[in-house]
Amino acid sequence: MLTSVYISFPFVSGAVEVSVRSPFACWFSAMLYCFGGSVLSSLMLGEPPVAFLEKNTNILLASSVWYLIFYCPQDMFYRCFAFLPLRLLVAGMKEVTRTWKITAGVAHADSHFKNAWLVMVAVGWARGAGGGLISNFEQLVRGVWKPETNELLKMSYPVKVTLVGAVLFTLQHNQYLPIARHNLMFLYTVFLVVTKVTMMLTRSATSPFAPIEAALGHMFFGMQQTPSKVKGESAVSSNGSSVCEQSSSGQHRDGVKKRQAKKTE
Amino acid sequence: MLTSVYISFPFVSGAVEVSVRSPFACWFSAMLYCFGGSVLSSLMLGEPPVAFLEKNTNILLASSVWYLIFYCPQDMFYRCFAFLPLRLLVAGMKEVTRTWKITAGVAHADSHFKNAWLVMVAVGWARGAGGGLISNFEQLVRGVWKPETNELLKMSYPVKVTLVGAVLFTLQHNQYLPIARHNLMFLYTVFLVVTKVTMMLTRSATSPFAPIEAALGHMFFGMQQTPSKVKGESAVSSNGSSVCEQSSSGQHRDGVKKRQAKKTE
Amino acid sequence: MLTSVYISFPFVSGAVEVSVRSPFACWFSAMLYCFGGSVLSSLMLGEPPVAFLEKNTNILLASSVWYLIFYCPQDMFYRCFAFLPLRLLVAGMKEVTRTWKITAGVAHADSHFKNAWLVMVAVGWARGAGGGLISNFEQLVRGVWKPETNELLKMSYPVKVTLVGAVLFTLQHNQYLPIARHNLMFLYTVFLVVTKVTMMLTRSATSPFAPIEAALGHMFFGMQQTPSKVKGESAVSSNGSSVCEQSSSGQHRDGVKKRQAKKTE
Repeated sequence: MLTSVYISFPFVSGAVEVSVRSPFACWFSAMLYCFGGSVLSSLMLGEPPVAFLEKNTNILLASSVWYLIFYCPQDMFYRCFAFLPLRLLVAGMKEVTRTWKITAGVAHADSHFKNAWLVMVAVGWARGAGGGLISNFEQLVRGVWKPETNELLKMSYPVKVTLVGAVLFTLQHNQYLPIARHNLMFLYTVFLVVTKVTMMLTRSATSPFAPIEAALGHMFFGMQQTPSKVKGESAVSSNGSSVCEQSSSGQHRDGVKKRQAKKTE
Repeated sequence: MLTSVYISFPFVSGAVEVSVRSPFACWFSAMLYCFGGSVLSSLMLGEPPVAFLEKNTNILLASSVWYLIFYCPQDMFYRCFAFLPLRLLVAGMKEVTRTWKITAGVAHADSHFKNAWLVMVAVGWARGAGGGLISNFEQLVRGVWKPETNELLKMSYPVKVTLVGAVLFTLQHNQYLPIARHNLMFLYTVFLVVTKVTMMLTRSATSPFAPIEAALGHMFFGMQQTPSKVKGESAVSSNGSSVCEQSSSGQHRDGVKKRQAKKTE
Repeated sequence: MLTSVYISFPFVSGAVEVSVRSPFACWFSAMLYCFGGSVLSSLMLGEPPVAFLEKNTNILLASSVWYLIFYCPQDMFYRCFAFLPLRLLVAGMKEVTRTWKITAGVAHADSHFKNAWLVMVAVGWARGAGGGLISNFEQLVRGVWKPETNELLKMSYPVKVTLVGAVLFTLQHNQYLPIARHNLMFLYTVFLVVTKVTMMLTRSATSPFAPIEAALGHMFFGMQQTPSKVKGESAVSSNGSSVCEQSSSGQHRDGVKKRQAKKTE
């Protein structure tokens, strides 16, 4: 089932070119993409980030998938997974592993720090959305450097939904939610899979959280409400790209400039 | 008292713009700015760098200050702290916390490594000046990347004075200085506060160490002595900018070029 | 004997210029260059990366060499080591330390993880070729940032041969090779020294692995075989630069573009 994660790597932009220039950098980048959550959460908890290499079977499986996708003659393996129903299946399975990763991260953080709910959220989030959060450094391995964008500045939908999940599972772990863990896991996974499949089928990149975000942004951060733009991006590519731009009206931008001028004078 | 640290964040250039684009990235950047010393020293000692999230009260306080400064209606909170006497008070308090951090870092390093005075200096320095030392990565969170400059290439005055402090407290810890620790702490703090307040009042960015540095640079590193330039920069902005440029005469530069040509031939 | 490592630092491009602008950044960069393997392998195993600072003698020795090379009057120290026979001796000694580092890394990883041969290879490699692998960040200290290139995208010969060594010593450690460890160490070191000295004397940068790599690349990754270009680069500068470019024929590149267009559509 973990295989599903490995299959989404070649959709990362620029991966194919690197696969020709340097198979090793491509492989390492793919491993960071697949096991980024494990690496990041280990770093955050002061544990060996190479621990993921200990599971030889996982690495072998991921490497096989990586090899077949990039170097299979006639591109046969890739073509199979470009077939829509199979891609939906794989994408759905990938979301299931996300739930596991988040709960594992929350439980792991709890075993290190007692009652540190912020640490639990952070580690659960890092474990679940690791590949996205370290995307700047995963790109660096491939010789790409885009400092002007990162997943914190413009969160993609998967990173957002993982953050929500990490908060939910932390609340549940600390018994603030009147729901059993396996029920929450089931509901959250169903939500993830349904949203992902819907986004892939409708080729829409609109986050289901967009209205809530707009309301919260307006209430707490004084952001102007704008009609959310429905962009016709492929849902598959939405993993690496931004989903919802927080455009601000000209009036607002003027206000910012005034404040900025004032503050830096 | 820790609040004082949190208040200086909005003076970081570009912070206001990010606060509009992405409150989350702004918050994370502010946390790195405030707790950078803790994160960096934890990383250096192989401890969980997320440990700072364990202290919920501190995070809550820092987040409140961050929120009030950036999103308070009419910018009232910010305007209060733009009032000079209050800003002097806050800046003075911030310097007091610096002393605490350095001594805590030195003691922490000593508990890990016995008699490793270089580790003690490094950890004390990292704890005291962490926000500055990781500024490249704190900027990256905000989508800014300035590789051509960092605090090692051009140390700002706070980073320099923290290094001096780390050396002094390490010497004191190893009983090389004939002074009790609380006396040294008192004297060092007074020096920090007086220098900081003077620099803010005179709007001068000249480091008190400039003559010593020039002498040492001349003696050990063959640097040409130049009349130190007194620049009329705002003392507030001196936190992130360079204080003393080591300008070298044309003659010296020629010597360097010759050496370089020779070495790379 | 370790001194030999420290002497190769000034050959890093741009180091001389930094030595004038900021002695501290130059020193820190030199330390990262010399002890990069130790720092990287510590980070990978979740241990304090500052541990290398604990060995005061090593640091003092490295710092003395660094100081004499960059700031010695008349450049005398540097001129001595620019004398070819002495440079050959130093380069040979440096390769001997490489063997030690790899075996130490493999053994260290084995003490942390049982039977995790991938971890052993990774840590052995990181310890042996650390300075090269973290070159992006070592350059960042000096204000240089070259994201488009790194040692994974275009492995230099020292990094490649260290990887081969890490694989060999891991196999030997797990008793897959019918050879005693000290024999393998001896043979590997002789190979390293002979290759290095040959490359320096012939000023050739052609990797001895080039034919094997081309064959493997052709067999597994569908790379086109091209006549390997013998470049007249100085062997000394080959530490930081790429050795063998994997040029692909126009026909191949077209194939890549087609695949890429297909995959990102």
